Amino acid sequence: MSTVRVAVVGYGYWGPNLVRNFSEIEGARVVAVCDLWDERLALVQRRYPGVRITRDANKLLADPAIDAVAIATPVSSHFDLVRGALDQGKHVLVEKPLANSSEECLRLLELAQARHLTLMVDHTFIYTSAVQKMKEIMDSGELGDIYYFDSVRTNLGLFQTDVNVIWDLAPHDLSIILFLLKRMPRAVFANGASHINELEDIAYLNLLFDDNVIAHVNVNWLAPVKIRRIVLGGSQKMIVYDDMEASEKVKVYDKGVNLVSQPQDIYRMLVQYRMGSMYSPPIQNTEALRSGCEHFVECVTQGKEPLTSGEFGWRVVQLLEAADRSMKQYGVLQEVGS
Amino acid sequence: MSTVRVAVVGYGYWGPNLVRNFSEIEGARVVAVCDLWDERLALVQRRYPGVRITRDANKLLADPAIDAVAIATPVSSHFDLVRGALDQGKHVLVEKPLANSSEECLRLLELAQARHLTLMVDHTFIYTSAVQKMKEIMDSGELGDIYYFDSVRTNLGLFQTDVNVIWDLAPHDLSIILFLLKRMPRAVFANGASHINELEDIAYLNLLFDDNVIAHVNVNWLAPVKIRRIVLGGSQKMIVYDDMEASEKVKVYDKGVNLVSQPQDIYRMLVQYRMGSMYSPPIQNTEALRSGCEHFVECVTQGKEPLTSGEFGWRVVQLLEAADRSMKQYGVLQEVGS
Amino acid sequence: MSTVRVAVVGYGYWGPNLVRNFSEIEGARVVAVCDLWDERLALVQRRYPGVRITRDANKLLADPAIDAVAIATPVSSHFDLVRGALDQGKHVLVEKPLANSSEECLRLLELAQARHLTLMVDHTFIYTSAVQKMKEIMDSGELGDIYYFDSVRTNLGLFQTDVNVIWDLAPHDLSIILFLLKRMPRAVFANGASHINELEDIAYLNLLFDDNVIAHVNVNWLAPVKIRRIVLGGSQKMIVYDDMEASEKVKVYDKGVNLVSQPQDIYRMLVQYRMGSMYSPPIQNTEALRSGCEHFVECVTQGKEPLTSGEFGWRVVQLLEAADRSMKQYGVLQEVGS
Amino acid sequence: MSTVRVAVVGYGYWGPNLVRNFSEIEGARVVAVCDLWDERLALVQRRYPGVRITRDANKLLADPAIDAVAIATPVSSHFDLVRGALDQGKHVLVEKPLANSSEECLRLLELAQARHLTLMVDHTFIYTSAVQKMKEIMDSGELGDIYYFDSVRTNLGLFQTDVNVIWDLAPHDLSIILFLLKRMPRAVFANGASHINELEDIAYLNLLFDDNVIAHVNVNWLAPVKIRRIVLGGSQKMIVYDDMEASEKVKVYDKGVNLVSQPQDIYRMLVQYRMGSMYSPPIQNTEALRSGCEHFVECVTQGKEPLTSGEFGWRVVQLLEAADRSMKQYGVLQEVGS
Repeated sequence: MSTVRVAVVGYGYWGPNLVRNFSEIEGARVVAVCDLWDERLALVQRRYPGVRITRDANKLLADPAIDAVAIATPVSSHFDLVRGALDQGKHVLVEKPLANSSEECLRLLELAQARHLTLMVDHTFIYTSAVQKMKEIMDSGELGDIYYFDSVRTNLGLFQTDVNVIWDLAPHDLSIILFLLKRMPRAVFANGASHINELEDIAYLNLLFDDNVIAHVNVNWLAPVKIRRIVLGGSQKMIVYDDMEASEKVKVYDKGVNLVSQPQDIYRMLVQYRMGSMYSPPIQNTEALRSGCEHFVECVTQGKEPLTSGEFGWRVVQLLEAADRSMKQYGVLQEVGS
Repeated sequence: MSTVRVAVVGYGYWGPNLVRNFSEIEGARVVAVCDLWDERLALVQRRYPGVRITRDANKLLADPAIDAVAIATPVSSHFDLVRGALDQGKHVLVEKPLANSSEECLRLLELAQARHLTLMVDHTFIYTSAVQKMKEIMDSGELGDIYYFDSVRTNLGLFQTDVNVIWDLAPHDLSIILFLLKRMPRAVFANGASHINELEDIAYLNLLFDDNVIAHVNVNWLAPVKIRRIVLGGSQKMIVYDDMEASEKVKVYDKGVNLVSQPQDIYRMLVQYRMGSMYSPPIQNTEALRSGCEHFVECVTQGKEPLTSGEFGWRVVQLLEAADRSMKQYGVLQEVGS
Repeated sequence: MSTVRVAVVGYGYWGPNLVRNFSEIEGARVVAVCDLWDERLALVQRRYPGVRITRDANKLLADPAIDAVAIATPVSSHFDLVRGALDQGKHVLVEKPLANSSEECLRLLELAQARHLTLMVDHTFIYTSAVQKMKEIMDSGELGDIYYFDSVRTNLGLFQTDVNVIWDLAPHDLSIILFLLKRMPRAVFANGASHINELEDIAYLNLLFDDNVIAHVNVNWLAPVKIRRIVLGGSQKMIVYDDMEASEKVKVYDKGVNLVSQPQDIYRMLVQYRMGSMYSPPIQNTEALRSGCEHFVECVTQGKEPLTSGEFGWRVVQLLEAADRSMKQYGVLQEVGS
Repeated sequence: MSTVRVAVVGYGYWGPNLVRNFSEIEGARVVAVCDLWDERLALVQRRYPGVRITRDANKLLADPAIDAVAIATPVSSHFDLVRGALDQGKHVLVEKPLANSSEECLRLLELAQARHLTLMVDHTFIYTSAVQKMKEIMDSGELGDIYYFDSVRTNLGLFQTDVNVIWDLAPHDLSIILFLLKRMPRAVFANGASHINELEDIAYLNLLFDDNVIAHVNVNWLAPVKIRRIVLGGSQKMIVYDDMEASEKVKVYDKGVNLVSQPQDIYRMLVQYRMGSMYSPPIQNTEALRSGCEHFVECVTQGKEPLTSGEFGWRVVQLLEAADRSMKQYGVLQEVGS
């Protein structure tokens, strides 16, 4: 396959970014865009006169002149669209989360495997230079033993009409956790509340791993300030990744812990406010989605397994399900199958 | 009583602040300081030649020339020292938390009531201008209905030798929650882990109130950066209190929530990054402990009930107990008696 | 004129933004793009298949099917291109600064006036919501008397090959000063130095107005961190505009000044760290260039005078010249003609 | 001399810090405090019952039981008090600036030399861990050639009754410049303005050194936010010292400069926002004045020359004079004698 011919389904918030990126990378070409709203399709036409527009997704999926479909529609439509695309032999890139349930995810990934098609979930953060750098530092052993992962992702968000804040925001953090730690937690429990409508708008997720490693994720649609901060604590060093920083997004602290055994030392220790140095490695300012789209094209053309494969997306949804279930039961622990 | 004669027990980290403040406020005088370490006592003598020093707390508590005792020793010693002081007819100001268990707290507060003595717990944050301002704004109704309280209190902390991170740091947040919301949660659950020794160094507390109000507290001794941030979310406005800010510690956001019912509006909303104004009221830069010590002297001399009375301190300890218990059971919900 | 047919000359750093904006606004259409580099033209063709590309600017300027020309080329080429376009009866939008000298600027603006053509300089900051908000607040009288304007604009910048840091960065600040204060300073003096090649990479500009109003501009290509901060100080209130803030770009402080006449008050005053409140008005997150392009189209179609007219651009260049001349003479004061 | 017996003259804003530090360090003892205000003396007595108080400075200076005098009074009184103390054979530590004029400074330092007495100016910043760390890094050659020094020191300040903002705040920056660069500039020019009374409240100082090194200092009493930031730019690395940061006060950037010779590269370079890493060395959190007082005691007892000697203080005042003179002449260049 010389050039991957891509159709994009959904031209709302994220779709334009998919169209723009697939338009500009080598090895791909956007041939069609589908949306239900004429106003959006008119915008496509204005921007990309050479791209075909349509309101009929089914016809698009059946079109033999299309190799791959990028889906950026509400979550509730993912299963049908992805299945339809795979059925028609198309490779698929789909917005996170992969589907509404782990059951559905499993069916989709099995279908993709059976048809030898690429199924990739657009967990964009995995393709950021910052997360890649965190991974590189962690894998080098520089952090020592991992102690904890802590993420805060809050702002005055857009309420989704079909999913709560866990399903909307936590896929980012859960995908980063799975990517970094390379294993599933043994159990999950969560808390949350809804205030505006029946969908929960605030949630706190706890993930328990072996060896006392814990991960915590705070997602919030009702916060006055935007926070995007992840802390990865290790026995030797700790990383803070603050995505709101214009530069210096990733900082590595070589701070250690000093145990105080004698009371009279308490005063002296407290006045030392830094015990080691910090450094911030250079991070390339490439658009994550650009890297993700290039990765997708590479996987399609070379038959490689995506970093954020259907199986990866299925694991994320397993965690979302467990957290959601626990939240609705006031924190009852949910075992997670590996 | 013209001047309250104060003895300070414990001259470690916090004791010097107590001595300094009681030395300088009207209506009080520091007459004696007790510590187990000669080195610390020598320091007292150097700084305050007129103050008596001693290693014998019991003799101090029995001294008729002392009206009140301020206790800044490890938590495990609080019960015996406070009881001893009350038994001897002394008014007591004691470091938070009041004691190791709610059972002990109850005995102390009953003893104080029986003896008509002031028992005040030094929940310092209640006496900060920032928390007082939050309270004032909240009580004015400006925030609308309260939705949530979220606190993060992390840094590379000093490991206590006798209590875990919940008992060390969470008293601050729990006291602020009780002060602002004026009621106990109906239930608590928590997560945590220990990495350095057997004491938990990271914990996440969930407090469930009626009407979907939730509170969450993240305390962490193993964090590379110091964070002291509280968000109080309401239906009309939200407050962010960042204690690490040199000025503008309290910010009030009049951001609201816009529900999106039609998919085509999604794009337009997301690009509006602020929907209302923010203001930061002036905050007086007075030392909280100064206000606290003055409040204690006022309560002692006028027989008033402290804001952070023995009963208040007992409620905090009930919450600490519940959270600690839940944490050790991987988040099992703990009902809290009102 | 129903739709303004725009040609864009120069598709380097800024040109793509011009093409994108003129492509999407009502009332305009990009019909051609000119650049000297085939690689850039190929990119245009990829993105905008319907737009004509060319390497020949002169032919473009002569094309009767073009109504307006947007010029985004190096400064040294501005004079010839703008003159050529005006000679051919085209309306012109040109990158800042308008030309290499005030003499050239004067000729261009006279030519535009004689031909009744719109000549607008793309001083983008004037079209930001933040600067518009500052203007609105200032004009309301809320700040009281204006005391000073202070701007810092630094980062590890791109060295221009044809102009120094004053000509590259200071047009932003000088245009904001002229827009806000609505008058020329009476004199200018400056300092600067070159370290990498013969072009000055750091400069400090002082502008003296009547009534003790002073303005200061610090521009720096060699700074490790990016700063974009303007302070506008008044007798009643002060504005801080920090363009690096993701939100809350504009803050209004109602701090005042307290004169200390008695020495013993010194201590008490110093410990008050805030004397009034601060507020941050909501700022629309629209792209400034979008507003600028719309303004240009409106001026062209309705014959209105642009906010950043040729005359405005000429005044900016007068100040650039004066500052540059002073800098090369170690700060000798330069009177500025009104 | 076993213990240096210190008298402190002036118990306003800074005096209490001197008394506290000299009280606690080894090798010194505060024996007397002088102030003109009874209220302040009463406070001394309350805090330090063993310290003698007096309103009569002359008697104090003549007291044979005093070895050294620390002077924290308004600048206008420095000359008489320092001369009086030196005349009486006392070592002297005096607040910055040393005196009102370089002429007076010269007389004082010659008097100290003639009498073999320690004369030290309390340029506190030289004793901060941050400035010491900057010096260490600079002296190691890590920064390469020094390009520039840039300092901003602004806040809503306390108006002094006897000196303008240059004499009040710039001594900090000028002392740091002299300490780091180890040489005098060849010339100085400045700008400033007064708005509240006749004293200038805003000023911008330019210092010209050989080899194109420039230093710039912005001091401002009328700013709404407190800024304390110094940038030291070198050919290899650059340091940012932000004193308002709670931790990470000093950051070292290994950013370099990339010259762009070919226009088509412009776009690619601009999107790289960091080109090297940054690190922040650990800084000890010791009080600068503590180190300064210890240094003074060491100089007194061992006859060593202070880092901030009378001669050092004289150089600072030479620069203050030159800057002040230039400011009053709208920036006329002032040659500085080495």
